[in-house]
Amino acid sequence: MSLSMNLPSKVRLVEVGPRDGLQNEKQPISVADKIQLVNDLNAAGLSTIEVGSFVSPKWVPQMAGSAEVFTGIERKPGVVYQALTPNLKGFEAALAAGADEVAVFAAASEAFSQKNINCSISESLERFRDLMAAAQAANIPVRGYVSCVLGCPYDGEVAPAQVLSVARELFAMGCYEVSVGDTIGVGTAGKTRALFNLLAREIPREKLGGHFHDTYGQALANIYASLQEGIEIFDSSVAGLGGCPYAKGATGNVATEDVVYLLNGLGIQHGIDLSRLAAAGQRICDVLGRANGSRVARALLSQ
Amino acid sequence: MSLSMNLPSKVRLVEVGPRDGLQNEKQPISVADKIQLVNDLNAAGLSTIEVGSFVSPKWVPQMAGSAEVFTGIERKPGVVYQALTPNLKGFEAALAAGADEVAVFAAASEAFSQKNINCSISESLERFRDLMAAAQAANIPVRGYVSCVLGCPYDGEVAPAQVLSVARELFAMGCYEVSVGDTIGVGTAGKTRALFNLLAREIPREKLGGHFHDTYGQALANIYASLQEGIEIFDSSVAGLGGCPYAKGATGNVATEDVVYLLNGLGIQHGIDLSRLAAAGQRICDVLGRANGSRVARALLSQ
Repeated sequence: MSLSMNLPSKVRLVEVGPRDGLQNEKQPISVADKIQLVNDLNAAGLSTIEVGSFVSPKWVPQMAGSAEVFTGIERKPGVVYQALTPNLKGFEAALAAGADEVAVFAAASEAFSQKNINCSISESLERFRDLMAAAQAANIPVRGYVSCVLGCPYDGEVAPAQVLSVARELFAMGCYEVSVGDTIGVGTAGKTRALFNLLAREIPREKLGGHFHDTYGQALANIYASLQEGIEIFDSSVAGLGGCPYAKGATGNVATEDVVYLLNGLGIQHGIDLSRLAAAGQRICDVLGRANGSRVARALLSQ
Repeated sequence: MSLSMNLPSKVRLVEVGPRDGLQNEKQPISVADKIQLVNDLNAAGLSTIEVGSFVSPKWVPQMAGSAEVFTGIERKPGVVYQALTPNLKGFEAALAAGADEVAVFAAASEAFSQKNINCSISESLERFRDLMAAAQAANIPVRGYVSCVLGCPYDGEVAPAQVLSVARELFAMGCYEVSVGDTIGVGTAGKTRALFNLLAREIPREKLGGHFHDTYGQALANIYASLQEGIEIFDSSVAGLGGCPYAKGATGNVATEDVVYLLNGLGIQHGIDLSRLAAAGQRICDVLGRANGSRVARALLSQ
């Protein structure tokens, strides 16, 4: 066949359900339920799990008890248990709790940075300097997130060059990998390809991750487009946990099950057991009392 | 940019909501509501609308009154109003009702053909011969549908060569265009490309349509893959009308709004007004008392 498909043979999924997902669900759940979720994801074969966040529970009540979650989970060799850390204090707490890795975040849009964390992009990066130094001293890898890479709820269009500039800065500060996120899910396949094409001129493709939201149903098409650009790392959330705070009732993170199904169809390795994953997703949906946000899970579980 | 993207500049969407969609909704609705739906779709800019089906209302109660729908709708110049016709009797009724075009269907899977219409694929094609002759005499174009092209609920895998064979037969019988359908939504992007790549060896790409179901969330990725194979015709259903009879509670036809959003992002022309389309979809969902199956519509209408 003359198909011009040079897709990666292997993909690593970063499971963000326990953090990015649960953080955006209205209802906080118990530490025990969070531990169960992480253990279930472990058992399903996920190799990187964002377990929790070390922020003030005053601001994000859903993330209360992240230290207890870290100490309560069963650790599987080779699996990376990650924490989101907004500052040095959060980093120290994550380290004490036993996080293998931490993640920091910045926005690609000035307006989003101001409205979301009340400072400019460069100020937000500046605030990570002491965290980065402490992480380096403790030999803890730091992952970077860039949000609003394909659109901003306040600014609209976001220039790919601006995403490159923030990603470049995160690498310069010491991040080993940067995940670029379509936070509001407005991106489409062509723009996704163009963005990664630009980023890859300066940054090795294997250090770039894609983080897509399914708000407009585009996430899988965007992931397929990213694969065509040689991207091998994707963030996803079991059962599509996490809504979209900028459009009530709309879908948030792409469901891990749906990504796994796509990868299976493409013959791309990932190491995840789809039926165990779907069971894990349904279990947490039952805890939350919400509908399952994965189409694959709904189809599989209704058969 | 060095992106190898030779996508079509223009796409024609075939709106199947009033027929394929409503036929698979549990609850039959009134003729007046069907007329309103078609008129709304008209106003949103759809150029081909599958208005109804001329089958026995004993078998498909949702399609009762298709003749009244055809006579009741406002006709817009240049718009094609299509009817599904299983046999000569249906064709004659469609012609009398004023259908501009008719559509016939066959399966790519023997098991599906047997279970769905109780005969073999070749018998089912044989049964269309008198209809095709009557259509030719009346100068009515006939569109062909092939179902189960990427998988069958009974047989599992379906060989692309089998799809080619049925499509070839439909063209040989006089169809001007053939739409190949992933009836149970199991297909993924790589298989979609491979299928169209094979079909296009014998059949001009501009005579092939793609009909995708979102049961496993793959429809938009499959449409993006099809666009990359030069396919310019897609079937879709406003608000994702139509469930999947083979997986209860699962999603059926891809939502027209979601396809339009993808095409907008890719800069591909289609002539459809997304906000009027989303309003039309929400209106029919309210009539049916069902949740809107379009993620784009949910996001747009919740803002």
